[in-house]
Amino acid sequence: METPQHHPLDAAIALEPAGEHRYRGSTSADYANMVGPFGGVIAATLLNAALTHPQRLGDPLSLTVHYAAPIADGDYDISARPMRTNRNTQHWLIELLQGDGVAAFATAVFANRRDTWGATETPFPEVPPPDAVAVAPTHPRAAWTRRYQMRFITGALGEADADREPDSLTQVWMRDDPPRPLDYAALASLCDAFFPRIFVRRPSWVPVGTVALTTYFHADAAQLAAQGTQPVLGAARAGRFGNGFFDQSAEVWSSDGQLLAVSHQVVYFKE
Amino acid sequence: METPQHHPLDAAIALEPAGEHRYRGSTSADYANMVGPFGGVIAATLLNAALTHPQRLGDPLSLTVHYAAPIADGDYDISARPMRTNRNTQHWLIELLQGDGVAAFATAVFANRRDTWGATETPFPEVPPPDAVAVAPTHPRAAWTRRYQMRFITGALGEADADREPDSLTQVWMRDDPPRPLDYAALASLCDAFFPRIFVRRPSWVPVGTVALTTYFHADAAQLAAQGTQPVLGAARAGRFGNGFFDQSAEVWSSDGQLLAVSHQVVYFKE
Repeated sequence: METPQHHPLDAAIALEPAGEHRYRGSTSADYANMVGPFGGVIAATLLNAALTHPQRLGDPLSLTVHYAAPIADGDYDISARPMRTNRNTQHWLIELLQGDGVAAFATAVFANRRDTWGATETPFPEVPPPDAVAVAPTHPRAAWTRRYQMRFITGALGEADADREPDSLTQVWMRDDPPRPLDYAALASLCDAFFPRIFVRRPSWVPVGTVALTTYFHADAAQLAAQGTQPVLGAARAGRFGNGFFDQSAEVWSSDGQLLAVSHQVVYFKE
Repeated sequence: METPQHHPLDAAIALEPAGEHRYRGSTSADYANMVGPFGGVIAATLLNAALTHPQRLGDPLSLTVHYAAPIADGDYDISARPMRTNRNTQHWLIELLQGDGVAAFATAVFANRRDTWGATETPFPEVPPPDAVAVAPTHPRAAWTRRYQMRFITGALGEADADREPDSLTQVWMRDDPPRPLDYAALASLCDAFFPRIFVRRPSWVPVGTVALTTYFHADAAQLAAQGTQPVLGAARAGRFGNGFFDQSAEVWSSDGQLLAVSHQVVYFKE
């Protein structure tokens, strides 16, 4: 196991301070997508700007990322500033700047968590354990897929023609590859590691791109620490496809069935 | 039926231009909550700033609202500016300013929709028609509930002790009261008209407040026009409660079973 400092994810999301509320970073070949960087690592990078900001309060509660324009491989600037700081919550605006424009931006809520009554209504899926599921091949044209080990229980790419319900449900055990202890940045990235649902639903390839993504973090720091490098269970499905867009929702569960995060995104598709 | 111009919702979300990217508005007693304004109308107002902006492109696709601080009854300023305008999508940042701070802010995506393949995976619930369901009483301490006619099929307030599954599912036919033709602003508000799930799940009252909310609009302008003033079907449920927060998700369906919008929010609760 590589230590976090030397893991490719940490290199990819690393930021250099560049003045008040400002950082510099650059895209990582390890997490390249077919065109530009993998969106999950962009989400993790934007979150990381707030995580490393000296005015940060508490831990991430929500993160919304807007993929506003194509992100070019290379350097970028980040502006991260607290929009409002309350006693136990803090709201952020974080912008990724390239050239003279905003290529992506995020809003986030950080919060102090307290011990309260709790209950989970979303059912933990009945699935075989990770060791009982084969590791899927990575995607030859998307380098970032080599940075995740995925074991699909259902809804892998290329199953669209198979004898299954006409839906886009995926259930998958997944972890960073090489293994890396789970933290908020890694979880933010994992929440975008589900392939666009249209590829699960339909066999043909079409241009797609996430337009905006929102993740709610349920896990507290102790749950993340307990998870360590074990695989998480992901489940993703679509709501509605139409008019050139669709929405998809995902849950990420700890290896012992705790709901760590839920994530929703709206995706553009062309046909 | 009142015309949109004279409907209380239109008065509540009305904005006066106040310079480039700037507007002025004020809270409405018609949509008061127990403390401050009803969050749904704040969401509709923030969206309305982009809807009425001279640089707007297309129609709403997504809206994320951060309720960053208590909003006082009275006047507010709004700053609305396009962060990035592409050929068919436009990303917005919209801020509600009171005193010297940001009380709420939103990001949004507007888009040109195109006719494409479509499919809905979320099942339309089997429910009785609106006329077969009794109209619920409004809440005496929340004026805004008088501006919605609600017919609960399941999961009304006060059912927490009843003989039902231990979940927080609500199914409800609802419409503006008085009736008003559905549009994006009204739909944005309706998406926040589901009571906090903790009140459906547990009988005791606790302080709560939406922290952040994201709505994806599936409906195009023609679907909204076809819906008119008929009641929409809403369904809402919780994901996980814990550590002082919970997430809830909702769908809003047209009277003939089309998925008009989905909405997700993270809510603070105290106990």
